[in-house]
Amino acid sequence: MSTEHASPSSGLSKARVEALTDGIFAVAMTLLILDIKVPVVADAAQLPRELLSLWPKCASYAVSFLMLGIYWVGQHHQFHLIRHTDRALLWIDILFLMTISFVPFSTALLSTYPHEQSAVIVYGANLITIGLILFGHWSYATHGRRLVDAQLDERTVRRASRRILVGPAMFGLAIAVSVYSTAAALGIFALVPLWYLVPGKIDQDVGRAR
Amino acid sequence: MSTEHASPSSGLSKARVEALTDGIFAVAMTLLILDIKVPVVADAAQLPRELLSLWPKCASYAVSFLMLGIYWVGQHHQFHLIRHTDRALLWIDILFLMTISFVPFSTALLSTYPHEQSAVIVYGANLITIGLILFGHWSYATHGRRLVDAQLDERTVRRASRRILVGPAMFGLAIAVSVYSTAAALGIFALVPLWYLVPGKIDQDVGRAR
Amino acid sequence: MSTEHASPSSGLSKARVEALTDGIFAVAMTLLILDIKVPVVADAAQLPRELLSLWPKCASYAVSFLMLGIYWVGQHHQFHLIRHTDRALLWIDILFLMTISFVPFSTALLSTYPHEQSAVIVYGANLITIGLILFGHWSYATHGRRLVDAQLDERTVRRASRRILVGPAMFGLAIAVSVYSTAAALGIFALVPLWYLVPGKIDQDVGRAR
Amino acid sequence: MSTEHASPSSGLSKARVEALTDGIFAVAMTLLILDIKVPVVADAAQLPRELLSLWPKCASYAVSFLMLGIYWVGQHHQFHLIRHTDRALLWIDILFLMTISFVPFSTALLSTYPHEQSAVIVYGANLITIGLILFGHWSYATHGRRLVDAQLDERTVRRASRRILVGPAMFGLAIAVSVYSTAAALGIFALVPLWYLVPGKIDQDVGRAR
Repeated sequence: MSTEHASPSSGLSKARVEALTDGIFAVAMTLLILDIKVPVVADAAQLPRELLSLWPKCASYAVSFLMLGIYWVGQHHQFHLIRHTDRALLWIDILFLMTISFVPFSTALLSTYPHEQSAVIVYGANLITIGLILFGHWSYATHGRRLVDAQLDERTVRRASRRILVGPAMFGLAIAVSVYSTAAALGIFALVPLWYLVPGKIDQDVGRAR
Repeated sequence: MSTEHASPSSGLSKARVEALTDGIFAVAMTLLILDIKVPVVADAAQLPRELLSLWPKCASYAVSFLMLGIYWVGQHHQFHLIRHTDRALLWIDILFLMTISFVPFSTALLSTYPHEQSAVIVYGANLITIGLILFGHWSYATHGRRLVDAQLDERTVRRASRRILVGPAMFGLAIAVSVYSTAAALGIFALVPLWYLVPGKIDQDVGRAR
Repeated sequence: MSTEHASPSSGLSKARVEALTDGIFAVAMTLLILDIKVPVVADAAQLPRELLSLWPKCASYAVSFLMLGIYWVGQHHQFHLIRHTDRALLWIDILFLMTISFVPFSTALLSTYPHEQSAVIVYGANLITIGLILFGHWSYATHGRRLVDAQLDERTVRRASRRILVGPAMFGLAIAVSVYSTAAALGIFALVPLWYLVPGKIDQDVGRAR
Repeated sequence: MSTEHASPSSGLSKARVEALTDGIFAVAMTLLILDIKVPVVADAAQLPRELLSLWPKCASYAVSFLMLGIYWVGQHHQFHLIRHTDRALLWIDILFLMTISFVPFSTALLSTYPHEQSAVIVYGANLITIGLILFGHWSYATHGRRLVDAQLDERTVRRASRRILVGPAMFGLAIAVSVYSTAAALGIFALVPLWYLVPGKIDQDVGRAR
C-alpha cells in the first residue's frame, strides 16, 4: 500500500497525481461530445439527412476518445512501474495533462475542417506533443532507474519507449502525407488506435514487474 | 485489498479503471443539465409559461440521468465480481465509456425532437449499444471464469446476463413501436429505469459472492 | 478499512458511491461558472461598468457554490455514520445527485431573472428537494438502525435530522416571502449558507461516533 | 492509513476533501479549453491565419493551466502535512475551491481583453484571493500546531508561508504595473509559474516530514 499512496521522496503522492490525471481524462473525454451539436432544422423531414451528415463529427469523436484512452492506458502503465514521484515528474505530468485537455479543441477543429491541412497539422501536432511528453516522462523516470525499481529490466524500458514513440511517428507521417491528401492523413489517425488495441510484449513485462 | 487495487494479470488496476469510469459517469450525468437552457423572454410575464414548456427537457433529463445511473450500477456490480483486468477488458470498458459519453448528445436530440422517429432511433440505439457492450463485458469476464472467481455460480452469471439484456430488448421494442407512435416509445424509455429500481435475485447473488 | 471499501450487504461499495458523488459535486460546482459570461462590449471603455454589472451573477455563483458545499458536507457526514449500503439507499443517492446536477440550471435561471417570482420558486424548490431527499436518505439509513451502527445514539439521529430540515424550512420561507418581495427571498437564500458555517452539536456527535 | 482516510476530530475525512479538490481542479483545468473556439471562416484559405491569431488564447490557456497546477500542488503539499480536518478548515477549503472554479471565467476575460486594465485586475485579484485563502488555510492548520504534527518544524511552517505569499505579491505587482503597461503585467503573470517550477527548500522539508 505504501508505494500506492505515498512517495518517500516528496510530498506528492502517486495517488493524488493519479486522481487528477483520471479526472482530467474523464472530463476531456466527455467534453468531446460537446462538438456534436443537435441539428437545427426548419422542416422535421430533414432531420434524418442532417443526422447522417454528422458522421464526420462522430468519427472524430470516436477516434479522439480512443486516442485519449490509449494515452490514459500509457500513463497508467508507467505509473504502475514508477515507485516514487518528485517535483520534476509532477510538472511533466501537468504538462502532459495540459496537452490532453487541448484535445477537445483540436478534435473540434479537425471535425469542422477535415479537408484543411492546417487542421490536420494542429491535430497531429497536439497528439505528437502528448506522445513526446509521455516519452519524456518515461525517460526521466527510468534514467538511472531514478524513480522505478532498480531491478527493472532494461528491455522493458526500451520496449515501452518504442511503443510510446510509434504514436508520434505515425502522427508525423500523417502530417507529411497531408501535403498530398488530407483524407489519407485522416486514415492514418484512425488506424493508430487500432494498432494500440493489440497487446504487445510490454503487457507481459508490466504484468511481471508488478 | 490486493484484488481491489491491483491485478496480477496486467498493469491495469481495477481501482484506476473504476476511477475513470466514475469520473466519466459523473461528467456525463452532470452535462445532461446543459440541455436545459434558461428561457429568453422579452416580457417577464411570459417566464412561468416558458418554464412549464421546459417539461419535456426535464423529463428527458430525469430519464437519462436514471439510465446512466442504472448502467453505472451495472458496471459496478460486474466490477465487484471481476477479480482481474486484462487489456481486452480494459478496451471493452473504454468502448463502454465512449457510448456513455454519447448520452448527453442523444438525450438533447430526443428532447429537441421528441416526436421524430429518427431521434427515437438514435437514442434507443445509443442505449442498446451501451447494454450490449456491458453484456459483452460480462460474457468476456465470465467465459471460462476468465477474470472472475472460479467458484462463481453459473446461475449468478446467467441471471446477471439476463438482467443486462432486458434493457436492450426494451429499447429495441421502443424503436419498433416508434414506427406507430413515438409517444409510446418515449413511454417505454421512461418505464425501463423504474423496472431496474426493483431489486432482483442478482442482488442477493452479488451480496453472497463478495 | 473494510467498512470503508466494501459493504457486506450488497455489491455496491461505499467507496464508489462516494466517488460518483464527489465527481458530480465537483462538476456541478465548477459548471456554475459557465453562467458568468465574458461581456461583449463595442467600446473597451465600457468594460469596467459591464464587469460591475455582473455582480448578481457572481453573488448567485457564490451562494450556490456554498449551498452545494453544504449539501456535500451533509452527504459526507451521513456516509461516515452509514456502515453499509443497499439498493434502495443507492437509488436515493442517485436521486439526490440528480437534484444536485440541476443546481447549475436553477442558479442560472435565478441569476438571469432575480426579480421574477417563478425563478425564485424553481431555485427554492430545487434546494428543498435536495434537502428532503437528504432527509429521506438519513431516515432510511437510521430507521431501525438499518444501515448504521446499532449503538448510534438516538439524539445524534434526531439532531442530524433537525439540522438537515433547517434548509428546506428556510427555502420554503423564502418562497413564501417571494410573494411580497423577491429581494427578501434572495436575502434568505444568501443567509442559509452562513448559518450552516457555524458548527453545531452534530459535529461532536459525528466526531464521537467515528 | 488512518490519517489518510479518516480524521479523529471530525466526520470529514481528508480523503473525501482531496477527492472533491482533485475533481474541481480537474474540471476547472479542462474547462479552460472551452475558451479556445474553432474559428469560423468563410474562405478556408483564411484558416491558417485565423489559427495563428488564437495565440493569445493559447498563451492564456497555458498560463492558467500552470497556475492551477501550482495551486493544486500547493494544496497537496499542505494536505500531506495536515493530519486532521475540522469544520473551519473544510470551509476554508470550499472557499478555496470557489476561487479555483472562478479561474476559467477570469482567464476567458483576460484572453478576450488582454489590453484592458480591468481584465488584468480581475484576473490578478482572482489569483491573489486564491493565494491568500491558501495562506489562511496553512496559518489556520499550523497555528498552535492545531491540525498538524506537534513536532512540525517552525522553519518549515514559515518557509511554506513565504513560498505561498510570493504568488499574491507578484500578482499585486502585476496589477500595479498594469497602470503603466498591461503587456508588462501579462509578462509577470507568465513568469510566476516558471518561478514555482524551481524546487525550493520546502520540498526537502515536506519530504522529511512525511
